[in-house]
Amino acid sequence: MRHRSVGIFDSGVGGLTVFKEISCLLPGENLIYLGDTARVPYGTKSVETVCRYALEAAEFLVDKGVKLLVVACNTASAVALPSLRERFQLPVIGVIEPGARRAAQSKNRKVGVIGTEGTINSSRYPEAIRVLLPDAQITSAACPLFVPLAEEGWADHEVARLAAREYLQPLLASQVDTLVLGCTHYPLLRNTLSHVLGDSVVLVDSAEETAKSVQQLFQQQGLLNPQNGGQRTFFVTDVPTRFERVGRAFLGHNLGQVEQVQIG
Amino acid sequence: MRHRSVGIFDSGVGGLTVFKEISCLLPGENLIYLGDTARVPYGTKSVETVCRYALEAAEFLVDKGVKLLVVACNTASAVALPSLRERFQLPVIGVIEPGARRAAQSKNRKVGVIGTEGTINSSRYPEAIRVLLPDAQITSAACPLFVPLAEEGWADHEVARLAAREYLQPLLASQVDTLVLGCTHYPLLRNTLSHVLGDSVVLVDSAEETAKSVQQLFQQQGLLNPQNGGQRTFFVTDVPTRFERVGRAFLGHNLGQVEQVQIG
Repeated sequence: MRHRSVGIFDSGVGGLTVFKEISCLLPGENLIYLGDTARVPYGTKSVETVCRYALEAAEFLVDKGVKLLVVACNTASAVALPSLRERFQLPVIGVIEPGARRAAQSKNRKVGVIGTEGTINSSRYPEAIRVLLPDAQITSAACPLFVPLAEEGWADHEVARLAAREYLQPLLASQVDTLVLGCTHYPLLRNTLSHVLGDSVVLVDSAEETAKSVQQLFQQQGLLNPQNGGQRTFFVTDVPTRFERVGRAFLGHNLGQVEQVQIG
Repeated sequence: MRHRSVGIFDSGVGGLTVFKEISCLLPGENLIYLGDTARVPYGTKSVETVCRYALEAAEFLVDKGVKLLVVACNTASAVALPSLRERFQLPVIGVIEPGARRAAQSKNRKVGVIGTEGTINSSRYPEAIRVLLPDAQITSAACPLFVPLAEEGWADHEVARLAAREYLQPLLASQVDTLVLGCTHYPLLRNTLSHVLGDSVVLVDSAEETAKSVQQLFQQQGLLNPQNGGQRTFFVTDVPTRFERVGRAFLGHNLGQVEQVQIG
């Protein structure tokens, strides 16, 4: 069981931020990543459609015999976790609870959450934070332009700063001391967000927190892979060219072989 | 035959600009619109995947017995027209040739083309323009942020102006007198584009030109529907909520009933 792979899926390339953190923290694990690039993005689509896509992506990974399913996509984590846990007989970790745990350490109990329309509409982050910090004052904002800005390579561009000033206005007004980056692309906008909000605001990267949750789970259940240097395998549902190009910006190095598959 | 419907498809809501022009010019026609909102956008996806999606969308409309297929999506028009014409025994009109015809009227023979990555990479606009104006000097630019900006309702926002100044820099430098809006969303950015390029640059809206091509074809082949006030029917592949909301901005009024269907 310990030698089985970890399956990670996302709507596209963004989940590589989660992949990267798990890869750094748990270098011995074999990781299989699936990016549903033929149907990306999930963030503007309905709960029903995102659930269907998530189940199909998970099925592909489960068929590979993984020991754990990591839902690296915030939108899919927000709306599809119950369906995934019901359908499959293996542990499923999403990115919401780990991010919420870190956010609940807010000093002034004023927390900001940003994400896609789907994630923000689901209210899953506020719910998860309030379980741990019942009197938290939470301000949420959907930031649909942040993903295309990051993919365009404009994360530090003046256009991104201007968009951030617009989106973050209500969060500035409510004086949050902690901001949850509720979308896998947003860590790329770290500098821009700090520039607008000020350096004192803690930026919670769900990717890092999720990797810690995976480590914890494996330690508790004796599932850590004892080998050195696990394998990394990438699958996508569209032609790999774009994924490979944008993926380099996420990982900081080439991805190696990426295989196209059809799911659903 | 004359009484049959016109089938129009797009990756999502953007093709409503084409729908609107056909609806205004040919009010007697019955129009069936299909937006593939569960898989939108097409503009960042591969030729192979866009062709597969276009064939599936077209099949849905052909099964409804339409007399003409209008490919309202620039990306699908750029890469899938030959496959569609080969597969189906009915006339197929895309948005590229009509737009190119108008662009070829450029006075200084310096033409700009903007569109999605898929449309720009295909080089279909430059090819179609050069057939009519062989010595045209054509400058192209992919503008991936324009679609999300239009959908965000930020078409006239300072963020859009700043993005436009960045994208249009090479087109300003080459002193184009005509700009092809090679994506269905771009007519919404008309003011911003004119602001950056100057009022003297002619903006070619493929939607208007495509509607004229449809009218011409029907006149030539005696296919005009003689009735007053045709029916308008909308289908989408995701839950209709978002399509209805964004669609109002495109049409300037409510869409009426929108039905969700599964294709592919």
